[in-house]
Amino acid sequence: MNEKRQGRPARRPEPARELAEDMIEGRNALTEALKSGRTIDKVFVAEGETDKALARLAAQAKEAGAVVVPTDRRKLDQMSPTGAHQGVMAQVAAHEYATLEDILRRAADRGEAPLLVLCDELSDPHNLGAILRTAECAGAHGVVIPKRRSVGLTAVVSKTSAGAVEYMPVARVGNMATAIRELKENGVWVFGTAADGNTDLYHADLKGPAAIVIGNEGQGMSRLVAESCDFRVSIPMKGRISSLNASAAAAILLYEAVRQRNG
Amino acid sequence: MNEKRQGRPARRPEPARELAEDMIEGRNALTEALKSGRTIDKVFVAEGETDKALARLAAQAKEAGAVVVPTDRRKLDQMSPTGAHQGVMAQVAAHEYATLEDILRRAADRGEAPLLVLCDELSDPHNLGAILRTAECAGAHGVVIPKRRSVGLTAVVSKTSAGAVEYMPVARVGNMATAIRELKENGVWVFGTAADGNTDLYHADLKGPAAIVIGNEGQGMSRLVAESCDFRVSIPMKGRISSLNASAAAAILLYEAVRQRNG
Repeated sequence: MNEKRQGRPARRPEPARELAEDMIEGRNALTEALKSGRTIDKVFVAEGETDKALARLAAQAKEAGAVVVPTDRRKLDQMSPTGAHQGVMAQVAAHEYATLEDILRRAADRGEAPLLVLCDELSDPHNLGAILRTAECAGAHGVVIPKRRSVGLTAVVSKTSAGAVEYMPVARVGNMATAIRELKENGVWVFGTAADGNTDLYHADLKGPAAIVIGNEGQGMSRLVAESCDFRVSIPMKGRISSLNASAAAAILLYEAVRQRNG
Repeated sequence: MNEKRQGRPARRPEPARELAEDMIEGRNALTEALKSGRTIDKVFVAEGETDKALARLAAQAKEAGAVVVPTDRRKLDQMSPTGAHQGVMAQVAAHEYATLEDILRRAADRGEAPLLVLCDELSDPHNLGAILRTAECAGAHGVVIPKRRSVGLTAVVSKTSAGAVEYMPVARVGNMATAIRELKENGVWVFGTAADGNTDLYHADLKGPAAIVIGNEGQGMSRLVAESCDFRVSIPMKGRISSLNASAAAAILLYEAVRQRNG
């Protein structure tokens, strides 16, 4: 891109693009979104910004559940098609979030043993969307994601979920290990997935209250989360590559639960 | 992009882009690729092109296994970053193709009942790549795709497969129904997936020689292919959306085969 600018004074280095459908830019837009009660996933504030009005706005968004991400100004420029971001952009969630209690109540209302998927720091929106879709098909009661270091309910997630985002409750928690503790206190068994797991998939008992933990695409589960699991399940690997895609692993575990619960 | 060029006579309306890594453009490049024995998936020839040398080149590519696709010249212009396509572009396969015989021999060499995935007209390269990856993890012996109306082994498929494209043989067949007949003659049972299937997934016997058919993302299996299947398997749907993603369906069936074969 820079090549094209040689010798020409350009106000902005980026070509004309459209604002991503789940992004809003500028202070007024964020103020209005907060007023109207829309769920804000993330607020990107220009690093080094000292403006007090902006700081108040960020605090208000945080209060409403958003994560505030200090962001390099050049990154903001890239994200903003018009460049009129005034030091702040925000990502709106495609759907409002639920709580762990909502999810457990949903299972209780149906008279079913809870079945949840815990996504530990997934970064690919296609994976989260695919997991929502499969979770809905498998009759799971909810999906849990962490607030930080994880994709939220973005427009891509919503699209990939093929409508499941409308039906499948997603709880966004501050700390996954704490959420696991809360689930355990409610009688839910937590099954992590790991290559070196100590429980064979087909010997894991997924009939009772169960939460399946799917690790990050690159590193798998974080250490703290892995240590919190009751069981570490290994999916048999018969070939020359050592790991499944996160959404494939989720599909295999969810439908093993369906098989066991059907039988 | 266009805005930046206002007032300048632009040779081409398209912004500067890079040629997709699996595309080649122009007659010389295609001639060299054919000479060197590279596997060409598709040759896009400008519609209405009457040049005899180009017709000979297209015929040579077809002879070598490529599908020749008459293409609107504006489409070619879009595909070609430099615009120097000379009326022809081609897509090179990321890996060479195998045959059905190769796949069956692979199973026989291992002393295993064949396990194949037949992808009926998948259009999304991410789905085909994900299926290759899961097939390799599940120890399947090969994947079959049709020559036409299907994504081939593109660079995106290769990337999504996470290396599986190097290990998992992919046969590209002229006609899927004919391939199914050939598999049946070799003792392979063919299991289609369909919402209105007559066999419950967990009652399908996947221990013996088995081919799993995964339908197109939008329409499912084509009629002829659906009629060729020995069994039409339905995956239990417990939620409010009616279908799984193609690669999730493949993962569920492949690992049900793993479970049954392990047991």
